[in-house]
Amino acid sequence: MSAVIEKPGMEQKRFDSKKMKELAILVFQKLGYLGRESEIIADVLVTADLYGVSSHGLQRLNLYVHGLDIGRIKREAKSRIICETAVSALIDADDGMGQLSGVESMHIAIEKAKQAGIGFVVTRNNNHFGIAGYYAQMAMAEKLIGICMTNSEALMVPTYGRRALLGTDPIAIAMPAEPYPFLLDIATAVVPRGKLEVYMKDKKPIPEGWAVGADGKVTTDPFEVNECFVKKTCGGILPIGGLGELLGGHKGYGIALAVELFTGILSQGYTSDMVRKVHSIDRSCATFIAIDYGMFGDKIEIEKRFSDYLAKLRNSEKADGATRIYTHGEKEYFNRIECEKRGIYLQAKTIEEIVFICKRFEIPYEEYIGV
Amino acid sequence: MSAVIEKPGMEQKRFDSKKMKELAILVFQKLGYLGRESEIIADVLVTADLYGVSSHGLQRLNLYVHGLDIGRIKREAKSRIICETAVSALIDADDGMGQLSGVESMHIAIEKAKQAGIGFVVTRNNNHFGIAGYYAQMAMAEKLIGICMTNSEALMVPTYGRRALLGTDPIAIAMPAEPYPFLLDIATAVVPRGKLEVYMKDKKPIPEGWAVGADGKVTTDPFEVNECFVKKTCGGILPIGGLGELLGGHKGYGIALAVELFTGILSQGYTSDMVRKVHSIDRSCATFIAIDYGMFGDKIEIEKRFSDYLAKLRNSEKADGATRIYTHGEKEYFNRIECEKRGIYLQAKTIEEIVFICKRFEIPYEEYIGV
Repeated sequence: MSAVIEKPGMEQKRFDSKKMKELAILVFQKLGYLGRESEIIADVLVTADLYGVSSHGLQRLNLYVHGLDIGRIKREAKSRIICETAVSALIDADDGMGQLSGVESMHIAIEKAKQAGIGFVVTRNNNHFGIAGYYAQMAMAEKLIGICMTNSEALMVPTYGRRALLGTDPIAIAMPAEPYPFLLDIATAVVPRGKLEVYMKDKKPIPEGWAVGADGKVTTDPFEVNECFVKKTCGGILPIGGLGELLGGHKGYGIALAVELFTGILSQGYTSDMVRKVHSIDRSCATFIAIDYGMFGDKIEIEKRFSDYLAKLRNSEKADGATRIYTHGEKEYFNRIECEKRGIYLQAKTIEEIVFICKRFEIPYEEYIGV
Repeated sequence: MSAVIEKPGMEQKRFDSKKMKELAILVFQKLGYLGRESEIIADVLVTADLYGVSSHGLQRLNLYVHGLDIGRIKREAKSRIICETAVSALIDADDGMGQLSGVESMHIAIEKAKQAGIGFVVTRNNNHFGIAGYYAQMAMAEKLIGICMTNSEALMVPTYGRRALLGTDPIAIAMPAEPYPFLLDIATAVVPRGKLEVYMKDKKPIPEGWAVGADGKVTTDPFEVNECFVKKTCGGILPIGGLGELLGGHKGYGIALAVELFTGILSQGYTSDMVRKVHSIDRSCATFIAIDYGMFGDKIEIEKRFSDYLAKLRNSEKADGATRIYTHGEKEYFNRIECEKRGIYLQAKTIEEIVFICKRFEIPYEEYIGV
């Protein structure tokens, strides 16, 4: 429920997730990354596909290759710790691959949480790192609360404004629970850019309340909004809650502003209005927090209380016409189980791009994707 | 922008904030609190009025007196630290006055942040503590980031549900900035209960998307929603973003769930579905976090970056028809300046209640309120 789980369309087919991951590892090795580095990058991408968040999955492989080609992503990047305390670190990712600095940053947060109870790491000069939820669940796998946020290219307008100065500014929060964990992974924009792209592809109008055009008034034309992004004119996506204050748009704007504070401001890097603006360099900033809830009591007891509460919500009376109440992370959990068995969905266009990349690097793709 | 700043109506008059605070101090002293305790409680209440959030101001004085009368608030409460580390504490508020345990909890978080960089305090068995923003700004006054959340009586339904199992679950985040600080103070419900009450008073329908009736379908009748709360039937307020997923209601629901995790679950107290349910005892739970952003760099430089970014947002192009873009805390800041000069607005009914309380305790109220 938290992430945008896209429905399979006509042009999609299933592919074995393990084989696709192996193929992605080969690509990143050919691009000069070590085996363990390539494994990390591929795992972040394929996990998004397993969750059903294909906008952040292997369909982005092409963009990462392009990013390396044009120098937006620096292959020889040496990330370094600028300063640290028992509970914190500031990391400069040196324009490297976002997944690598992301995993490294969350590892540091996890280690600090294990030692000191909390680890709070901010990372600047990063590149797009895939789904924020990946990093939050790294902490969860260690029986910690995981939180991850990132700023991004400016696509969101403030309430009553029309200049996109905020990113889609996602927040992910993960916490162990049974029978499946809690994993909130949401853009603080009402929808992520990928959702607009789906409407563009289908040539359908977007719902009112998702975006404003260059005049700051609501538009239902996804092409108009996209043109705003491409031409860097006014116009953009609205915060959670949509236009104005009626359904809480000003609150969504405030939560996005808090993400900007915790990422670009604390790391003293770029805020979203600067990301990808100068010479197309990304330089987004992200935050990685791990919290050992064992500080407050017995971990198993705390997990049980949360599991019980989540179950109570799911089992409560449904609205007329509704059949199910979800808790966050549930859809991703079941999607993963299904896709591990039956394969991840990839669009024909994505496969074309992957084949093109494989040919360039002389990778025998046929045995992985069977085309 | 963040909080509900109510517009003065016909039945409201201005009263001197200092005198009203002195009067409230006298009331709490008569109720058995020490001078410094009474000062804290009165300050939290009057600060809400100064911010223009009158729903959480002196109009609640009557409710606190009633809470003490019926034993919901325990006057002799002895709050105690159940366990603590360098960065954390779990506090049991022993059903005491919410403002006292709130201020004590944030003080502990601030001290820990000064020593260890972060202070993360969870407090259970609390009572209603007023505006969450009060505690967040306590940390801000010490040049720390302040965060405060609380759960509350269940008034919010989950997406696709109709049973209110979540509180309005406010979050407040405060950070120093010039020329005025950032203070986000929002319910994660699309509107707080107080806003429904304003519509009831005016006998006006509420906008679609604020609440559902007993069947889980959208209702525009505030009396119907209120009856759901009173009779404890299904129905309730929707999360930020409103009904379903179209404008992000499922995200608002997820953020509220995160508040439940950080408050009732971590403190091992009540989740909102239990608050005020058993023998009318409140037992809400709250979280108080202070973060020393000096861990990441020069504080003045970090503050300046934030101030510049906030100014950039405010000064950016306005939507057609809009005259101003706000950043959060701005409205409260200007409201305070005006109300400190010209007095806080209090409704005739509130003054009546205060006079009634003063008569009971033989407090010479005339010299404070001039009636």
